[in-house]
Amino acid sequence: MKSAATMQSSGRIDDLLPSILRHENVSRVSDEGIYILDRRLLPFERKEVFCPTWRECVSAIKNMVTQGGGPLEVALNAIIHTSRTAPGELKEAVEALSLSRPTNTTMKREIAAVYSGYERGGDIERLCMEVFNRYDRYYDLMSDIGESLINDGDGILTRCFPEHTFMLSCAKARRNGKRIRVYVPETRPYLQGAHLTEPCLREMGIECFLITDAMPSHFMREGKINLYMTAADLAFQSGIVVNKTGTLSDAVSALHYGIPYYAFSVSPSDSSEDIVIEYREGNDVRRIGNVQIASEDATALYPCFDIIDPEFVSGIITPEGIYEGNSRWNRNR
Amino acid sequence: MKSAATMQSSGRIDDLLPSILRHENVSRVSDEGIYILDRRLLPFERKEVFCPTWRECVSAIKNMVTQGGGPLEVALNAIIHTSRTAPGELKEAVEALSLSRPTNTTMKREIAAVYSGYERGGDIERLCMEVFNRYDRYYDLMSDIGESLINDGDGILTRCFPEHTFMLSCAKARRNGKRIRVYVPETRPYLQGAHLTEPCLREMGIECFLITDAMPSHFMREGKINLYMTAADLAFQSGIVVNKTGTLSDAVSALHYGIPYYAFSVSPSDSSEDIVIEYREGNDVRRIGNVQIASEDATALYPCFDIIDPEFVSGIITPEGIYEGNSRWNRNR
Repeated sequence: MKSAATMQSSGRIDDLLPSILRHENVSRVSDEGIYILDRRLLPFERKEVFCPTWRECVSAIKNMVTQGGGPLEVALNAIIHTSRTAPGELKEAVEALSLSRPTNTTMKREIAAVYSGYERGGDIERLCMEVFNRYDRYYDLMSDIGESLINDGDGILTRCFPEHTFMLSCAKARRNGKRIRVYVPETRPYLQGAHLTEPCLREMGIECFLITDAMPSHFMREGKINLYMTAADLAFQSGIVVNKTGTLSDAVSALHYGIPYYAFSVSPSDSSEDIVIEYREGNDVRRIGNVQIASEDATALYPCFDIIDPEFVSGIITPEGIYEGNSRWNRNR
Repeated sequence: MKSAATMQSSGRIDDLLPSILRHENVSRVSDEGIYILDRRLLPFERKEVFCPTWRECVSAIKNMVTQGGGPLEVALNAIIHTSRTAPGELKEAVEALSLSRPTNTTMKREIAAVYSGYERGGDIERLCMEVFNRYDRYYDLMSDIGESLINDGDGILTRCFPEHTFMLSCAKARRNGKRIRVYVPETRPYLQGAHLTEPCLREMGIECFLITDAMPSHFMREGKINLYMTAADLAFQSGIVVNKTGTLSDAVSALHYGIPYYAFSVSPSDSSEDIVIEYREGNDVRRIGNVQIASEDATALYPCFDIIDPEFVSGIITPEGIYEGNSRWNRNR
């Protein structure tokens, strides 16, 4: 059985995406349950985590089997599967999935809207497919804008795994004959830069350099980086961006060296009162995979996200255009 | 046989130092050869590399068995041993040791002076001991200044392994009743923060937090860090500091958040024309120890050092006082 998403995707962006971002390789649903590509094992092993019910999907999302836009696709597939096999559990499933990663408010909002449409009599599978297709359109529109900000010869810094919008922006820039190179910080502790971003860009034939997390300023000072672009775990109309720890450090240096910083966000929220910064276990810092890199007795801190204040943000790229926020935010650019 | 250094050290600073910085635990010389504590194995294993002659010392320094102030101590012990066993090779030994790490100009300068004193008829062992003792005095003086810049309640950021001067500054601050906490970035790719700095501070009873390399700005924004102090691989009277990659990123953020940055340097050079930035192998970025963290096909860049321009440097702490450089350098503070 094909993935629910694949059945209706337009295919327009699929040809440009690296393989792990195509719907069927993020998560797929079958009669038996939900399959999720385990991003934690990439690039060395390609293996799916099988979830018989939404309950295992909640655990998988909590355990970082997938991240970024992945949890939304998993949640939609979990809802489709639950509606087919245990419709009485739908409300409980939606609530538990919503809470599986506190910072992922996009997933929370979209599945709440799906459930609310269902309560008003909508067909739940159709409502889920509409979300899949709408996001494909968003990515296409946002990457058109991203591409327009890239110049021939640019050295672009990113951080963590910037997913569809950034990858498509680079792919389109390349298709338009722009020569670019991308600097990719490895992004400890989970190493999404080393494990996901660098292999994707290489697969796409884009010149890229893997660096450690503290090196971006080095290459900014040397004039080798002249554009900074990331995804956003959260963004706000006030101009605040919330993204993987390290983004603030890059953004402060970018402002100092006159390098514009753009974040991609489908829908910046109008209130920034609900910023919840997850702290994860110190073990994630003391270990790399199963390898101990520090003493068990070391006290380690791991705040997952940085809050990047508006003064550092040149613009938030949305499907409707570049959001430039309030006057305070525009002051520095 | 005791270490040459230990025989004459004053003992004044030894009581305050963490164990791995005491002379006999850095490197020691015996009739058979030179022993070097292998810092690459710390904190999990305490093992010495044995070097029968100066030639193996050159390789050990190149292979990062020790770093920071370690190569100077190894070079002095290698010269002492060569003068006892193969005095005819002294000139060749000094030249090869000088070239073993291009950025370590302090070692280069000190052993050149020792050799020049020897050529003028000096006793080479006495000349070497004078260097050991002089550095102990330097560390004592510099850490008095470092201590004076620390306030009760301070959150202090460091980077890499800041060795004697920083450790002694913290020890003296603590002895004087100041409560401090230190934030220690793990410092990829060699993880000196996780392997050396954090265990030393913990051994000394100082509260410290291990973080990943991209997190300092996060804690600066939260107001938890209010002082930044590092060693300096090189420093110049123009106000330029050269130190482990990542120091620039921290220093840019420190300036932005109004946090003073001080670097320790025994003798800032008067000319910055000879800055040589080592690039090490991409393999060091693609691997952590023996663990592969990125594809072998990834192109990885590893510049060892950052150049920190004077605008970011509040002062360079030397044995003679805080060096504040030229007027351009003072402009921003």
